[in-house]
Amino acid sequence: MKEFDTIAAIATNLGESGVSIIRVSGDKALEIVSSVFKGKNDRKLDDIKTYTMRYGFIIDKDTSESLDEVIVSYMKGPRSFTAEDTVEINCHGGVIITKRILEEVVKAGARLADPGEFTKRAFLNGRIDLSQAEAVIDIITAKTELSAKSALEQSGGKISREIKELRDRLLQVIATIEATVDYPEDDLEEVTSERAKIQVEDILKSVEVLLSSADEGKILREGLNTVIVGKPNVGKSSILNAMLMESRAIVTEIPGTTRDIIEEYISIDGIPIKIIDTAGIRETEDLVEKIGVEKSREKIESADLVVLVLDISREIDEEDSEVIQFIKDKKYVVLLNKTDLRSEIDKGVIKELNSNYVIEVSAKTGEGLDKFKEVIKELFFRGEVSAKEVMVTNTRHKEALIRAKESLASSIAALENTFAIDLASIDLRDAWKILGEINGDTVEEDIIDTIFSKFCLGK
Amino acid sequence: MKEFDTIAAIATNLGESGVSIIRVSGDKALEIVSSVFKGKNDRKLDDIKTYTMRYGFIIDKDTSESLDEVIVSYMKGPRSFTAEDTVEINCHGGVIITKRILEEVVKAGARLADPGEFTKRAFLNGRIDLSQAEAVIDIITAKTELSAKSALEQSGGKISREIKELRDRLLQVIATIEATVDYPEDDLEEVTSERAKIQVEDILKSVEVLLSSADEGKILREGLNTVIVGKPNVGKSSILNAMLMESRAIVTEIPGTTRDIIEEYISIDGIPIKIIDTAGIRETEDLVEKIGVEKSREKIESADLVVLVLDISREIDEEDSEVIQFIKDKKYVVLLNKTDLRSEIDKGVIKELNSNYVIEVSAKTGEGLDKFKEVIKELFFRGEVSAKEVMVTNTRHKEALIRAKESLASSIAALENTFAIDLASIDLRDAWKILGEINGDTVEEDIIDTIFSKFCLGK
Repeated sequence: MKEFDTIAAIATNLGESGVSIIRVSGDKALEIVSSVFKGKNDRKLDDIKTYTMRYGFIIDKDTSESLDEVIVSYMKGPRSFTAEDTVEINCHGGVIITKRILEEVVKAGARLADPGEFTKRAFLNGRIDLSQAEAVIDIITAKTELSAKSALEQSGGKISREIKELRDRLLQVIATIEATVDYPEDDLEEVTSERAKIQVEDILKSVEVLLSSADEGKILREGLNTVIVGKPNVGKSSILNAMLMESRAIVTEIPGTTRDIIEEYISIDGIPIKIIDTAGIRETEDLVEKIGVEKSREKIESADLVVLVLDISREIDEEDSEVIQFIKDKKYVVLLNKTDLRSEIDKGVIKELNSNYVIEVSAKTGEGLDKFKEVIKELFFRGEVSAKEVMVTNTRHKEALIRAKESLASSIAALENTFAIDLASIDLRDAWKILGEINGDTVEEDIIDTIFSKFCLGK
Repeated sequence: MKEFDTIAAIATNLGESGVSIIRVSGDKALEIVSSVFKGKNDRKLDDIKTYTMRYGFIIDKDTSESLDEVIVSYMKGPRSFTAEDTVEINCHGGVIITKRILEEVVKAGARLADPGEFTKRAFLNGRIDLSQAEAVIDIITAKTELSAKSALEQSGGKISREIKELRDRLLQVIATIEATVDYPEDDLEEVTSERAKIQVEDILKSVEVLLSSADEGKILREGLNTVIVGKPNVGKSSILNAMLMESRAIVTEIPGTTRDIIEEYISIDGIPIKIIDTAGIRETEDLVEKIGVEKSREKIESADLVVLVLDISREIDEEDSEVIQFIKDKKYVVLLNKTDLRSEIDKGVIKELNSNYVIEVSAKTGEGLDKFKEVIKELFFRGEVSAKEVMVTNTRHKEALIRAKESLASSIAALENTFAIDLASIDLRDAWKILGEINGDTVEEDIIDTIFSKFCLGK
């Protein structure tokens, strides 16, 4: 195990709660925490055994005053999350107290951990590979059970094993080719080329299977970007609220109430749907509101699905047309809201809209919302989504797979020409290296830094 | 120990973080967690020792699928927070995962804990008294180090000991009086009355000392209610932001931007100051804004201190006068903002204001803000605030002390009349009972329920 300094951070989410944890990892973890700990009968932590806990107080080293009643637990490396000696201080979950204890631990010699540094150490100490480390953050940020499950499987090494197998197969092909090149007198180029081509095509197929899982994987992880639009006061916020079954957005009867973009996740059969409510789109003189409208336009640009809301109890007017004009090139679903009121809308105009999905709903009674959810599902998932197969959920992995695919295709082209067999070997080495980026075998240090900087503090 | 069912809750603050904890407490805690746990080599938790931990997975009992990698710790009662068998599941800090594990624990037979139920059990099981239990929630919600320290001392039993001593002294007086009443032939009424009066006066003095700490205690715990007012666009939000050194409130140049009430804490020498920014007070036609103005008026009513902000670069106009009219009966400080601009304000008008404190500040440059902080401190604390003495920080305790004081005073009056010595005994028993409410010795069950319902979930 490499030697690092000792780091500390708050590992739980900070806020008023029953318990908070300050995590300390490194060679000096026990020594540092022991120096600010006072157990029963002034007992220190020197003789604490791994995987045991001890009750006591964290004290201010300068004044000897107690800061909080705590339970300290000890996990000796390498049997810990970081594979280093790790001490966790379990204290009362107040913001002030938790920060104060962290401060005392830092005063005693620990360094404040960077975001993701605990997991980075687990990686640098060889306990997990890079794709497993990335899965840890996916578990934490998972928006639905299905994505959490998929991330847990990745953290267990599902993708790592798949990648390792592909790389082993590649190495065998490379070895054969290079032997042929090294001993040209054996005159095996033709046989080797043919065999290698078949093997590489097989590997390419496996890469393509992984890649095909990536789009559903992305939705699984990031959710489906759904934007609700419509002129002011057609009931966009009410529909969002009805979908969430709670009052997240402020609903009033005044057009222009929703100035900020509100984002929420709902889960349809385990699929996370990110719903973004927006300010009504209209020309406005109010500067604050104008900023809101501008943000809405940006959100529409990047949406996977736009939901147009019209008020069924009113005629379609110029403002509606303006909105329709604005989204006409996007994939969109039409919701005719307020079916609880008398329909006054011109159905002919609706028929002319560029959408196969027109659903009558009532945010007030909840009518039609199930149908709406069905449509979202239908639009994006042809089959059953399942986390059972290996699923690529990480954009970085997807990009590496695309590059590996290109190198493999290029090597196949080279193998079709017997004289270029040594060029094929270069492409195959590239593919081998690129796949290694996924589990971190061949990745550059700055990429590693970027990856871990996306983590939350304390992990 | 009494027998209760087994309860479970998320003990950490839910949100994306490194670690979450699910706490399970009760006779069946170990059995329940063991049934959803899978350790190395399928090891269960049957043989786990108290104050030790074990690594493994939480599994879905129905499908045997792993839900998360966890570390489980065990504290056998009575050496635990609740004084019952307690198992804590330390899992990855994702919202979905944490909720899912709790769900599985509930399926396995635990009941979802009510807010504060873990602490309530610690109380019902006799591990801590009521004032100590209340201190637990104060530690968690402490807004500054000083209030956290004071709460920790209370949780350690500082008030409990003081109350216990007072009650013991009261019992002795009561015993002497009742002996005198029971044996009237001894003719001791006069002597007893005189002695008892002196003793009760002493006890009364102690109660008064405790009570005198209550006002500073309240500020220590709840912070000082400070409301910033002024007509639109004088820089209220900017001043709040400058005080917070961060951009919490949205600042724009459009009057009426702050529609919601924004509350923030700053700490001046350890004293929490709750600053409430408000919508500008003015007549408005905008309904949403109107609600904001109404809320501001309510906040002013309950404020400990009002901060009036005027724009030094403009003449005082009708809108300013309206605001001044509105707050003139409150204790207020005047901030003349925008000293970075040319002063156009009529200093004569300022002099006529009903405030001893007029401070020139610039939210832009930070000028004058230190002075402002000094004034806040000066206004509310004559001496040094210190958490070293026993400090009453709890309103319920304060109210009990006031009632105890009344009973004691009434008993003194009775003792002055030798023939009413048995009436004095009734008053003293009342005082004894009332003081017992503080540590929970004599408190009604519904009061206990009310107290614990204020706790957060998982504590």
